[in-house]
Amino acid sequence: MMSSMWGKNIKISLFGESHGKAIGVTIDGVKAGFEIDVFELKKFMNRRISKNTKISTSRQEQDEFEFISGIFNGKTNGAPICAMIKNKYINSKNYEELKDIARPSHADFTGFIKYNGYNDFRGGGHFSGRLTAPLVLAGGICVQVLNNLNIYLSSHINSIKDIKDDKFDFENINIETFENLNSQEFPLLNQEKKILMEQEIYNAKQKLDSVGGTIETCVINLPVGLGNPIFENVESKISSMIFAIPSVKGVEFGEGFNSTKLFGSENNDEFEIIEKKIKTKTNNSGGILGGITSGMPLIVKTAIKPTPSIGKSQQTINLKTNQQTNIEIKGRHDPCIVPRAVVCVEAGIAISILDLIYDGGIYEFRSV
Amino acid sequence: MMSSMWGKNIKISLFGESHGKAIGVTIDGVKAGFEIDVFELKKFMNRRISKNTKISTSRQEQDEFEFISGIFNGKTNGAPICAMIKNKYINSKNYEELKDIARPSHADFTGFIKYNGYNDFRGGGHFSGRLTAPLVLAGGICVQVLNNLNIYLSSHINSIKDIKDDKFDFENINIETFENLNSQEFPLLNQEKKILMEQEIYNAKQKLDSVGGTIETCVINLPVGLGNPIFENVESKISSMIFAIPSVKGVEFGEGFNSTKLFGSENNDEFEIIEKKIKTKTNNSGGILGGITSGMPLIVKTAIKPTPSIGKSQQTINLKTNQQTNIEIKGRHDPCIVPRAVVCVEAGIAISILDLIYDGGIYEFRSV
Amino acid sequence: MMSSMWGKNIKISLFGESHGKAIGVTIDGVKAGFEIDVFELKKFMNRRISKNTKISTSRQEQDEFEFISGIFNGKTNGAPICAMIKNKYINSKNYEELKDIARPSHADFTGFIKYNGYNDFRGGGHFSGRLTAPLVLAGGICVQVLNNLNIYLSSHINSIKDIKDDKFDFENINIETFENLNSQEFPLLNQEKKILMEQEIYNAKQKLDSVGGTIETCVINLPVGLGNPIFENVESKISSMIFAIPSVKGVEFGEGFNSTKLFGSENNDEFEIIEKKIKTKTNNSGGILGGITSGMPLIVKTAIKPTPSIGKSQQTINLKTNQQTNIEIKGRHDPCIVPRAVVCVEAGIAISILDLIYDGGIYEFRSV
Amino acid sequence: MMSSMWGKNIKISLFGESHGKAIGVTIDGVKAGFEIDVFELKKFMNRRISKNTKISTSRQEQDEFEFISGIFNGKTNGAPICAMIKNKYINSKNYEELKDIARPSHADFTGFIKYNGYNDFRGGGHFSGRLTAPLVLAGGICVQVLNNLNIYLSSHINSIKDIKDDKFDFENINIETFENLNSQEFPLLNQEKKILMEQEIYNAKQKLDSVGGTIETCVINLPVGLGNPIFENVESKISSMIFAIPSVKGVEFGEGFNSTKLFGSENNDEFEIIEKKIKTKTNNSGGILGGITSGMPLIVKTAIKPTPSIGKSQQTINLKTNQQTNIEIKGRHDPCIVPRAVVCVEAGIAISILDLIYDGGIYEFRSV
Repeated sequence: MMSSMWGKNIKISLFGESHGKAIGVTIDGVKAGFEIDVFELKKFMNRRISKNTKISTSRQEQDEFEFISGIFNGKTNGAPICAMIKNKYINSKNYEELKDIARPSHADFTGFIKYNGYNDFRGGGHFSGRLTAPLVLAGGICVQVLNNLNIYLSSHINSIKDIKDDKFDFENINIETFENLNSQEFPLLNQEKKILMEQEIYNAKQKLDSVGGTIETCVINLPVGLGNPIFENVESKISSMIFAIPSVKGVEFGEGFNSTKLFGSENNDEFEIIEKKIKTKTNNSGGILGGITSGMPLIVKTAIKPTPSIGKSQQTINLKTNQQTNIEIKGRHDPCIVPRAVVCVEAGIAISILDLIYDGGIYEFRSV
Repeated sequence: MMSSMWGKNIKISLFGESHGKAIGVTIDGVKAGFEIDVFELKKFMNRRISKNTKISTSRQEQDEFEFISGIFNGKTNGAPICAMIKNKYINSKNYEELKDIARPSHADFTGFIKYNGYNDFRGGGHFSGRLTAPLVLAGGICVQVLNNLNIYLSSHINSIKDIKDDKFDFENINIETFENLNSQEFPLLNQEKKILMEQEIYNAKQKLDSVGGTIETCVINLPVGLGNPIFENVESKISSMIFAIPSVKGVEFGEGFNSTKLFGSENNDEFEIIEKKIKTKTNNSGGILGGITSGMPLIVKTAIKPTPSIGKSQQTINLKTNQQTNIEIKGRHDPCIVPRAVVCVEAGIAISILDLIYDGGIYEFRSV
Repeated sequence: MMSSMWGKNIKISLFGESHGKAIGVTIDGVKAGFEIDVFELKKFMNRRISKNTKISTSRQEQDEFEFISGIFNGKTNGAPICAMIKNKYINSKNYEELKDIARPSHADFTGFIKYNGYNDFRGGGHFSGRLTAPLVLAGGICVQVLNNLNIYLSSHINSIKDIKDDKFDFENINIETFENLNSQEFPLLNQEKKILMEQEIYNAKQKLDSVGGTIETCVINLPVGLGNPIFENVESKISSMIFAIPSVKGVEFGEGFNSTKLFGSENNDEFEIIEKKIKTKTNNSGGILGGITSGMPLIVKTAIKPTPSIGKSQQTINLKTNQQTNIEIKGRHDPCIVPRAVVCVEAGIAISILDLIYDGGIYEFRSV
Repeated sequence: MMSSMWGKNIKISLFGESHGKAIGVTIDGVKAGFEIDVFELKKFMNRRISKNTKISTSRQEQDEFEFISGIFNGKTNGAPICAMIKNKYINSKNYEELKDIARPSHADFTGFIKYNGYNDFRGGGHFSGRLTAPLVLAGGICVQVLNNLNIYLSSHINSIKDIKDDKFDFENINIETFENLNSQEFPLLNQEKKILMEQEIYNAKQKLDSVGGTIETCVINLPVGLGNPIFENVESKISSMIFAIPSVKGVEFGEGFNSTKLFGSENNDEFEIIEKKIKTKTNNSGGILGGITSGMPLIVKTAIKPTPSIGKSQQTINLKTNQQTNIEIKGRHDPCIVPRAVVCVEAGIAISILDLIYDGGIYEFRSV
C-alpha cells in the first residue's frame, strides 16, 4: 500500500496490475501548452519491448496507450495527464497453476504476507515489471520537456554478466551520440561487444537460466545548481526513483563503487577553464558535487540482477500449505531484461531531473 | 535550500554549519514514554570520532549534545526532540585563506553557484561532513527504539581501497557478533585485515593523499512486510537517506552490482523451511523482495569515495576571479573517512527502518 | 499544476476534465482484503446527483464508474485502486460560445492566466465541480472502511440562505439518525424546514439567480487521539481537503465563528464521567482539543457560496480581447448546489479521518 | 507526534515546550543572500506580546531569539535558518499543582491519552500558545521576503465578542494603511471601536471569564496565478497553516460564511477593466478564484475562541484518578488572546504565501 505515488514538483501516480484491465499513470506538474510528440513517445515506449526473438521470449505486445486527461487541442492543458494502457493478450494460465508457489527472488512471498494473500498474484500483479510501461510513458513525456530545455539523456548497456562495453568518451559526447544510442535496441558504445553479450544471453536461455548486467546513463547540458545539500540531493532523488524499477539492486554515480579503489588524487576532478567555462578535467564525480549538479555530464550506473524467472528447477514453498516444493517457471520471460530496462532507467532519471528543475530552489537561483 | 528535512513517519530536520554557532537536529515521531539511554547514545556518537592518530588527523572534539526539547522527566514526551551540538575548537583560518578557491570534488563550486556566493564556505558550511553528527544523534535514538523492538543492526568495513574484509556468515549472525563489531573503532569480521587496511590509509596519508572504501551494514530480526512495491520500497527509502551522507557515491542491496555477474540460478534465493520458519538458503536479495522486507537479514553496501581533501597540489579555480590556480589543502582532514562513516550509515539505516515500521501499511498488516 | 494529489497514508490522485474522455481517481492505502460494497458505493455516489427538477437543472447522468485496478476477486488487493467515470452526454456547445468570456466568480480568469490559455475551458475543465464525482467515489470507499471500524458520519443542510435547520442533539445521535439523514436527498433534522429552503432555491431559480448555504457534518465513535498538536492536527487535515471542493468559502469546527460571541465559561466544555467514560457536557469544541480527537462527535461546518453560474446578466471581460462585455450563463447549472455538496463534504471528511487513523502516531498509541 | 513540520517549498519545523529549555524553529527554503532586518523582526515579534495590563495578565517577557544557523555575514546563506528562544521566567508552580486536572477545552485530556501521560503538562508543553513565538519568528522573515517582492499584508481585529470593527475599504488600501495597522497593538480600522472592545475584555477579566473574536487579514499585490485547482489550492494551504494556531476554530475567505446569505448575483464579483488592468468590482471571493489568486486583495478571516483558561470554577476530571473534580485556573493568562493572535495569523499567512510563490507551477507560469 501507499506505494504508487512519487514526487514533489512532477508527481507520478501509477496504477494497475499485470493481468488486470489496464495499467496507467497520472502525471502532475507538466506545464500547460506543451505539445507532446506522440510518435516520439511511442518510439520511446517501444524501446521497452524486445523484438529480438533469439534472446527474448517476452510478451511481444505493443503498449498502446490512450490519454484520458490533461491534453486539450493537442497540447497539455495544465491539469494532470492520465494515460492508460489496456492489458491485452493476457495469459494467466501459467500463473493460476503456480499461484500458491512462491517464485524464488520474486515478490510472491513478501506480497502474500504483506497483503494477507489478497494481492493479485497473476503475473506479479502490481509488482510486475509491466508497471514500468506507464513509468516509461511518464518518463517519455518528461524527456520531451527536457529536450525542449536543451537537456538530453541516453544510456548504453555497460555490461552483461562479465562482458563490458567501452566507456563514454565525455569529451566527444553530443546529441548525435545520444540519438545513435537511443535508436539501438541493444545500445552499445562498442558494437563489437554486441555479439559477445547476446551470446551470453543466448547461452543462459539455452540452459533455462538468466543473466543480468549494468546500465550507464548520461545526462548532458544540465545547469549548475540542481539539487540540494543533505536530503534533497540529486543522488537521493534519482535513486529513490530508480529503485522503483523491479530487479534494480544497486545505483552509483560517477565512478561509484570503483572510486573506492582510487586514491583521492586519482578520483578528484580538477577544475579547468575551457572557453570561459568552468569544467573538470575528469568526471569521476558524475556531474554531482555536494548533492548539486556541477554542469558536467550526470552519470548514473544501475545494476540489474539476472531475471529471477528461470526454467531451471528451484526449491521453494507453497504459500498456502507452508510445504517445501519445487518450481520450474514457464511462460513468457526474458533470459535478460537489461536491454528492456534501459529505457525504464532513462524514464526514471528524466522524471527525477524535471522534478529537480521545477524545484523552488532553482527558481530562486535563476531569478536573480 | 529545501534540503534539511526528510521522512514520513519519523521526520528529521537538520540545521547548522560547520563553523557556525551550533549544529543540531529535530526528530519528530518517536513515541512518548521512551527512555533514551544517554550513555549509550554518547557511545554511539563517539563512534563518529576517530581516536587513531596514526590514520586520522581529524577534529578530535567530542560531540557534546544538549536536548532542547522532547524529553520530560527522562523520557520522550511525544513532542519533537531537538538536540544541539555547539561548535567548539573552530579554526576557520585555513578556510579564510582559501575561501575563494574551489576545492576539487568538494561542494565549494556548486554551493557558490547555487547560493550566489552567500553560502558559508568555512569548513564546507552546511555541506560539511560535520552535519552527520546530528544525523548520528537522531539515528542513535532510532537504534535504541529498534533494539527495544528486538531489531539490531551493525556494520563492518567491507573494503579499504583494494583490501577486502571477509563476508558476513549469515547463519551465525547474532546480537553478540553485532555487539563485538559495534565496539570496534575499525570494525572488521576478520581482524587480520586491520593492519593491511590501516597500512593503506597510512601510506595515503604519507603521500598527502587519501583512500576510500565500502561499508556493509546488516539489520536482523526485521518483520516480513516492511516497505512497498514501486515507490515507497525499502531500497528507495534507505538510499534516499544514505546518499545524504557526504562522500557516498553508491548504494547496493544484497549482492548488488555483483549479482549482475551471476546466473539467475546462482543469484536466486531458494526458499526452505527451517524450524517452521520460511527462510532462504542464500541471501543474495539482501533481505528485500519486491521492495518489501523478507525477514532475512537486510544487507546494504555503501561506497565511500576517497576523502576529497588532500595535501597534494591540485589544479582548480578561484571562484571570484574565475582564474585557474592551484590548491594544497591543509587543516584537519582524514586520509580515509570510512571508519567514521560506518556509524553515519547505520544511523541513516536505523532512521529509515523506523520510518518504515511506523508506516500505515505495516500497521494494517499487523492489526489483522 | 501539481494540484491533483493529496494525503499521507490514504493518498488520492484525481484526474480528468469535465468534458474530456473521463474523470477518475486513484486511491492508495486502503488495506488489502476489504470487500467494497458496490451497491452501497453507487448509492453514496448517487447522493451527488440531484433528482429534484424543481430546484435543479443539473446534468442528470448517473456517474457510472469502472474499477481499473486494485480489486481482485471482489476484494481490495493492496495495490492502488483506480476507478474511472466516462463522461457522457457532454454538451460543450454553450461553452464553445462563451469560451473567451470569463464567468464571474468562476476560475475561468485565473485558469486562463495560470495556464496561459491552454486550460480546457469546457465546463470548467479540471476546475469543474464534476471532479467531485471521483472524490466522492474515493470517499465512499473510505466511508465503508470507517463503518467497518464502527465509525459513522452524516450531515444535514444546516442552512440555505437565511433559513436554518435545527441543531444536532448530541445526546441522541446514533447510527439510525445517520441512516435516516443519509437516505434523504435534502437531509434535514427538522423536516419542516424543507419547504422553506426549497422555496428559497426555487425563488432564486425563477429570478435566474442562485443561493448558497451551510452543511454540518458529524462523525461519531472516533477514538481519542487522532491528529497532532501544531501542524498535522485534525482541523488542518480536514480543511485542506474540504477546501478542495469548489464553492467552499469557509470551514469551522464545533461552534466555530459562533464561539467568538460566547464567554469562555459558555464556550468551554466541562468534563464529566458518564458510565465510566470521560465525556464533555457540551461539545462546542466539536470533538477536537489541541488538534486531537477527544472522542466526542466531530463537528465540521462548511460554507458553500451561491452557485456562481447564474442566468442574470453580469459584467465581465473577454479574455482574448481584454474588452469588457456581458454574460448570461445558460446551460445546466443548479440554482443551489448545497444538497449535492453534502456528500462531497462527507467524502472529504471520510478520507481525512482514515488518513489520520492510519497515521504512525495512532499506531503507536494503540500498540501500548 | 509527527506534528511539527509543515511545507513544501518553505519548510517549517517547530520544537520546544512552554516550560522546557527553549522553543525554536528551523526554516528551510529562504533564498540565500537575503538580509534579515533584525530590528524589524523584533518589532514583528513584539506584536505577539501584550503590553496593556488592563486587558492582559500574560507572561510579559520579550521573546529574545538567537540565530543558530542559516545566517552568514549578516545574510541568509541558503542553509536552513534555525532560531531559538530561551524560556525564562518560568513559573511551573501553578501547573504542578494542577498537573493531573484536565483544564476544560484545553489539550490536557487528549495529550494525556495520546502520549500515555508522558507529555509535558507544564504550561501546555508542546501544545502551548507559546509555540506561536517561533512561528511568528519564521513568519516575520517571510514577511520581509514578501515585502521585498512588493507584497504586503496586514490585519485588523474584525470583532471582539459582539463588537465589530469597520470593513476594509478595498479601493483605498495601500501600504500606509497597512503600516498604520501594523503599528497598533490593538489594530482597528475604526479607532472608536477600541474602547468598546477593551471594555468587553475588561468586563470578562473582572468576571474571571474570557472572550474571543475574529481577525481579518489582507494581502495585497499578489500576482495572478498562485495556487492550484483541487488539492494544493490557496485556501487549503493557508487553512492548513492557520489551524496550527491554538484557539482557531474557523477560517473563511472573502465573504466566507456570510456569502451563504447572499444571492449569486450579489456575491459574484463582476469583472471590469481599470487602467488596463483586470479587476473585480467587488471582492467577495477574497482574491481567490478556483483555488488560485486573482490579483485582488487576499482576504482571510479567522475565528479565535474565548481563552479556555478562566478563573471561574469549572467541572472537570482528574486524569490520574478518573474522578470528577473542579478547577479554578490561576496563573498568567489573557482574558482575550485576539490582539496577540493577530500577528500569529499574519505569520502563518506569510509563510503560506511564500510557499506558494516558490512553487514549481508559478516558476513555469512566470518563465513563459
